[in-house]
Amino acid sequence: MSDAGAPALAAVDWGTSSLRVWLLDAGGAVLAERRSGEGMQTARETGFSAVLERLLADLGAPAGLPAIVCGMAGARQGWVEAPYADVPCTLTEIFDRAVPVENAGRVVRIVPGLAQRDRASPDVIRGEETQIAGAVGGLGAGRHILCMPGTHSKWVEVEESRVLGFATWMTGELFNVLSTHSILAHSIGEAAKEAAAEKEAFRDGLSLGLEQADRLTSLLFGIRAGTLLHGLRPAAAAARLSGLLMGAEIAGAKRRYLGAGGSVALVASGVLADLYRDALTLAGLGVGTVDADEAVRAGLVRAARVNGFLPGSS
Amino acid sequence: MSDAGAPALAAVDWGTSSLRVWLLDAGGAVLAERRSGEGMQTARETGFSAVLERLLADLGAPAGLPAIVCGMAGARQGWVEAPYADVPCTLTEIFDRAVPVENAGRVVRIVPGLAQRDRASPDVIRGEETQIAGAVGGLGAGRHILCMPGTHSKWVEVEESRVLGFATWMTGELFNVLSTHSILAHSIGEAAKEAAAEKEAFRDGLSLGLEQADRLTSLLFGIRAGTLLHGLRPAAAAARLSGLLMGAEIAGAKRRYLGAGGSVALVASGVLADLYRDALTLAGLGVGTVDADEAVRAGLVRAARVNGFLPGSS
Repeated sequence: MSDAGAPALAAVDWGTSSLRVWLLDAGGAVLAERRSGEGMQTARETGFSAVLERLLADLGAPAGLPAIVCGMAGARQGWVEAPYADVPCTLTEIFDRAVPVENAGRVVRIVPGLAQRDRASPDVIRGEETQIAGAVGGLGAGRHILCMPGTHSKWVEVEESRVLGFATWMTGELFNVLSTHSILAHSIGEAAKEAAAEKEAFRDGLSLGLEQADRLTSLLFGIRAGTLLHGLRPAAAAARLSGLLMGAEIAGAKRRYLGAGGSVALVASGVLADLYRDALTLAGLGVGTVDADEAVRAGLVRAARVNGFLPGSS
Repeated sequence: MSDAGAPALAAVDWGTSSLRVWLLDAGGAVLAERRSGEGMQTARETGFSAVLERLLADLGAPAGLPAIVCGMAGARQGWVEAPYADVPCTLTEIFDRAVPVENAGRVVRIVPGLAQRDRASPDVIRGEETQIAGAVGGLGAGRHILCMPGTHSKWVEVEESRVLGFATWMTGELFNVLSTHSILAHSIGEAAKEAAAEKEAFRDGLSLGLEQADRLTSLLFGIRAGTLLHGLRPAAAAARLSGLLMGAEIAGAKRRYLGAGGSVALVASGVLADLYRDALTLAGLGVGTVDADEAVRAGLVRAARVNGFLPGSS
């Protein structure tokens, strides 16, 4: 690996509301990092190229350093649309379809998302395809089920570097929307951020969600009733909501992908990783954790190799 | 029935965002009606007594006419709190607990709501207890399951004028919140009101919701994917959302109250009655319909009799 330690790639994860940029050397090691709130929604106004060039200048990136980008920058309303690759497909096929962007002085390519077009379960991914590529590198051969929690949790079925299919659960978004805009806002108030500390209420909700996912929209109202009848505290109400939604997600995904048992690769970081590890274990599943930040970086390196931005095989 | 045709009772259904007042004769026949947007939320500011007296003056109600009230006027944040009656209880026991209100020149009582205090499925009702009383009058002896759709759909188990238990599904509220505040707003836009016209999309959503209620929060995201991948139109997206939520409600309620089959008494009016009648039938249930407006009036008459406001047995 010649020139180790010198910047060889700018790796960019460009989400809806934030972005992260890393300077990596030819071996994929992190030399520097910047995080910014200029996600797709902001960059649409201020200009994607201007945002990226300013962050790279801050990082002291050399002129002409190639950049590989994943995430919402490739959405229709993003920088340049990177049309979805259809599943099933291999990770190499995905990265082969990275779309070049007109950008003075620097080669930039954007990784496409994934589309599952069958009418019974249409679904899309944008950004997680790169995390998947990074995560499966460490999982060995065979079939794997990945759980990637977040605003829109993704469960993904992969086999031998091939993405077979996936499904989205709106867990994180439902937590935010219900705790803010529904009658449950009266129960939760300002306590949504305290949910993770209320272990018992979280586990109560989780057990109910796992056991009775088919009446989730009734269990949700039980939070309101708990406030009125049993003095359920706001932080406990938030934890119960989180547990119910997470339990329903895991119950549904387990039935779809795992049957009675099995193992999942949990791709997550921080508090979310802790919560899901507990929840998956309570659901009777084996859990191996892959750090989500490391996974996206490893995936971007893999994408860069497929695109000839870095030496080495993909 | 002496003095038939003369006003004998003011019957009031006071909801969160609207109220209805009827002048009834001693036999329960409607002499006049007013609807108003001055529900609990508004009347808290303008004064419950002032709102009621003005509507009764508009209706030409005689001085001293007694008024029986159900609904959110009896909530803690309402006119006067009418503490919940606990299930199981008889309808007569509920109405016996109507709470008198200080109101110059007129006797007013507010009917309490119902509480189900068990920790596994805490739930509350306020207003529907009176509809239940009106509806069961026409159902004959034995056990009945009532389906009362709305913002918060209520399913109620009654036997011999005794309310055994109930459960709430947040179907209507979830439709409003998700079509306005979630990512699904991008799929539905202004078309939420057109949902009822899209029969095919409604039935597709309904079938999915009935069959796969345990992965509802994943099916919801399929609406977004349908827009991105299959050009799902906004009105069809709204209908699909409505069908999914209604299907999940009926699947959960059916499992809880009915097992493989059986019949329900649908307490509803207008478009909602039509949608639920179709949906319940598709779910393999027998359906008898009770008009929701007639049910609440009949229930208020029954409450008035228990409270000695009208002659006759309850």
